[in-house]
Amino acid sequence: MSESVYKFIELVGTSPTSWEEAVKNAVETASKSLRDTRVAEVKDLDVKIEGGKVASFRAVVKLSFKYQTGDA
Amino acid sequence: MSESVYKFIELVGTSPTSWEEAVKNAVETASKSLRDTRVAEVKDLDVKIEGGKVASFRAVVKLSFKYQTGDA
Amino acid sequence: MSESVYKFIELVGTSPTSWEEAVKNAVETASKSLRDTRVAEVKDLDVKIEGGKVASFRAVVKLSFKYQTGDA
Amino acid sequence: MSESVYKFIELVGTSPTSWEEAVKNAVETASKSLRDTRVAEVKDLDVKIEGGKVASFRAVVKLSFKYQTGDA
Amino acid sequence: MSESVYKFIELVGTSPTSWEEAVKNAVETASKSLRDTRVAEVKDLDVKIEGGKVASFRAVVKLSFKYQTGDA
Amino acid sequence: MSESVYKFIELVGTSPTSWEEAVKNAVETASKSLRDTRVAEVKDLDVKIEGGKVASFRAVVKLSFKYQTGDA
Amino acid sequence: MSESVYKFIELVGTSPTSWEEAVKNAVETASKSLRDTRVAEVKDLDVKIEGGKVASFRAVVKLSFKYQTGDA
Amino acid sequence: MSESVYKFIELVGTSPTSWEEAVKNAVETASKSLRDTRVAEVKDLDVKIEGGKVASFRAVVKLSFKYQTGDA
Amino acid sequence: MSESVYKFIELVGTSPTSWEEAVKNAVETASKSLRDTRVAEVKDLDVKIEGGKVASFRAVVKLSFKYQTGDA
Amino acid sequence: MSESVYKFIELVGTSPTSWEEAVKNAVETASKSLRDTRVAEVKDLDVKIEGGKVASFRAVVKLSFKYQTGDA
Amino acid sequence: MSESVYKFIELVGTSPTSWEEAVKNAVETASKSLRDTRVAEVKDLDVKIEGGKVASFRAVVKLSFKYQTGDA
Amino acid sequence: MSESVYKFIELVGTSPTSWEEAVKNAVETASKSLRDTRVAEVKDLDVKIEGGKVASFRAVVKLSFKYQTGDA
Repeated sequence: MSESVYKFIELVGTSPTSWEEAVKNAVETASKSLRDTRVAEVKDLDVKIEGGKVASFRAVVKLSFKYQTGDA
Repeated sequence: MSESVYKFIELVGTSPTSWEEAVKNAVETASKSLRDTRVAEVKDLDVKIEGGKVASFRAVVKLSFKYQTGDA
Repeated sequence: MSESVYKFIELVGTSPTSWEEAVKNAVETASKSLRDTRVAEVKDLDVKIEGGKVASFRAVVKLSFKYQTGDA
Repeated sequence: MSESVYKFIELVGTSPTSWEEAVKNAVETASKSLRDTRVAEVKDLDVKIEGGKVASFRAVVKLSFKYQTGDA
Repeated sequence: MSESVYKFIELVGTSPTSWEEAVKNAVETASKSLRDTRVAEVKDLDVKIEGGKVASFRAVVKLSFKYQTGDA
Repeated sequence: MSESVYKFIELVGTSPTSWEEAVKNAVETASKSLRDTRVAEVKDLDVKIEGGKVASFRAVVKLSFKYQTGDA
Repeated sequence: MSESVYKFIELVGTSPTSWEEAVKNAVETASKSLRDTRVAEVKDLDVKIEGGKVASFRAVVKLSFKYQTGDA
Repeated sequence: MSESVYKFIELVGTSPTSWEEAVKNAVETASKSLRDTRVAEVKDLDVKIEGGKVASFRAVVKLSFKYQTGDA
Repeated sequence: MSESVYKFIELVGTSPTSWEEAVKNAVETASKSLRDTRVAEVKDLDVKIEGGKVASFRAVVKLSFKYQTGDA
Repeated sequence: MSESVYKFIELVGTSPTSWEEAVKNAVETASKSLRDTRVAEVKDLDVKIEGGKVASFRAVVKLSFKYQTGDA
Repeated sequence: MSESVYKFIELVGTSPTSWEEAVKNAVETASKSLRDTRVAEVKDLDVKIEGGKVASFRAVVKLSFKYQTGDA
Repeated sequence: MSESVYKFIELVGTSPTSWEEAVKNAVETASKSLRDTRVAEVKDLDVKIEGGKVASFRAVVKLSFKYQTGDA
């Protein structure tokens, strides 16, 4: 019985309030269709600036999920 | 209303003439089916050599686009 | 005729015996549905530990394959 | 008409409450005199410790703004 | 009189609410027994996912403290 | 007689045609006011995308010039 | 009830036959006295050479375990 | 009362005798006009060669100082 | 029959017109005497500046070729 | 007979005169209680600044020594 | 009496069975003509894929040997 | 007339007294047979330890010189 294979994808979540919310946004959106998500690593954090003020917090996360033949 | 989530993918474009053309090739091929592509970062550049001559220019680009539930 | 574009994905293979087997597991699972896979680069190696013993070997590989419009 | 040139600078913001506030502090201070600031990337995060307790949160951000001849 | 030597250790703190709390947790636990802790650098941030939801925030911090002969 | 000190700055040049032009744009704009510029290292390359097409080529360069007391 | 804190250490295992054995050697030696070891990441691999032949395989692994106040 | 913001700059010091002197040269030149300089991190070290001999030692240092609105 | 061994070398090519030409210059010079060169990876790009203008484009490439006992 | 396992630790040495002295300070302090220390790699160099002058040279070194069950 | 100087070279070994064999192949080929080889560091691991199966294991190693004037 | 091509090599110099001497040792040994050496970048610094004392200072330098067809 061959061991299951996992795939990584990188997503960008955004939130007007915090990086924690931005990550929740990305993870929970992806988890609706991806199987067996367990850990998401933060790769980058930045902020969007409008009119000299911080408008939103963005987080790039790397998420692993169970890979099924056919996923590209 | 939750903020939209973006996904990154890495593509390799090729051209016999320049890295600019190689990147255009990758970006424009992907943009036919991906939504809201805005920036592509160059991750790596190399050349293929045949008979001691440079045969083609290759560029690895990291491209973000709007993620829709169901994309793996 | 524009040059073909390739896409990278990152997979995690696992094996109870060795990293070579873990990589074979990931590459051969993916190659069932991906076109023209040629090289897989090892990005990370780790082991899972259970009861103070090494339970399995895990390898993260980065695999390129021919991209077709529509792949996300 | 030559394209406008942008300059990067690295700033350290501090806050007793969170890294989000620390980044706001740096971005909003700089935006008072810098033109067209759009994105600030987080390069490093740390905390200052006093008496074994976290006293403040510090964030290093890399900020781009429109460069004008004469800026060093 | 030779200058004092400092040692680095890497700790992982966890919190259900934020990375700031996760870091406080690690720093304050360590500071109970380590001497003269001044700065803790964040090396990695990730989240644990359970049932498609973010269950906890984890931060890896690198902490320096005064080294005493005998510490391994 | 103390040796002269040099300072580094990072600039972003842009061009609709190539990265070579983008770098020329940044270097020649800066050299109007900076003294003794000799080498500029490319740190990053990317492209801006509009309507699925490459709109411009951007290059981040790190440039050294002679530092004079008073430059911040 | 505050969350448990984990500590990382880096060990070098050695084996005359393979890197898998070298990692097992390090992990199983450490697990005799460290609590709750779960994952060990490979940081570096090298070989020792004697008389022009590979004499042994060495692996640097980064191992996390449950931290108890008093560990330095 | 908002916390003070610090700015990083990168300087290159040179000396015919040692890297320590090269760093002193850069730090002490900059400290004549920059406020509250506390730490300088070494980013790179190299040597200039003339006639097959080491002619000078060069050090790139990253220096933080108190930022005042108006500094670019 | 043991598998052939390949060696890497790093070369710097230069051109007054473009990085593509600079890489061709390095690859084609080396291929005159090196066997079986197939791929050259770009490691760094920079420009030389004279009188505030870009004088030449330089590319550092990493090139592999078939190694023969005796090559140092 | 299983091969001996080595452990890495990171120490910071300081000296008012040079980085060589700073490293000697860290290595010789640690070697009083650590077994079989052979090589110390320099990971970072910086200087502390007081009153615009370099006050001390600091070096972070990574040191390996023979690990004995019980070391955390 | 000046200390001996060592040189690094990077080689790629290949094997159909394992990375250990691939490294042995590179190290033992090089050691036939290079003096005083002691350690080889693994820089990269990958696999070649043919027909969706792993055809060979490749390892890039960095090897030091005693340098003699005249080696380029 | 094609531009001249330069080659990089990495050397390790050693000295019982300082890293500056170690670099001089490597650069001056190599410059006896290499043409047009101009800059040597420091890639790594370490120390050898004997009997708990620093026995020697080692520096890895990356040196460029004019490449002539035939150099491997």
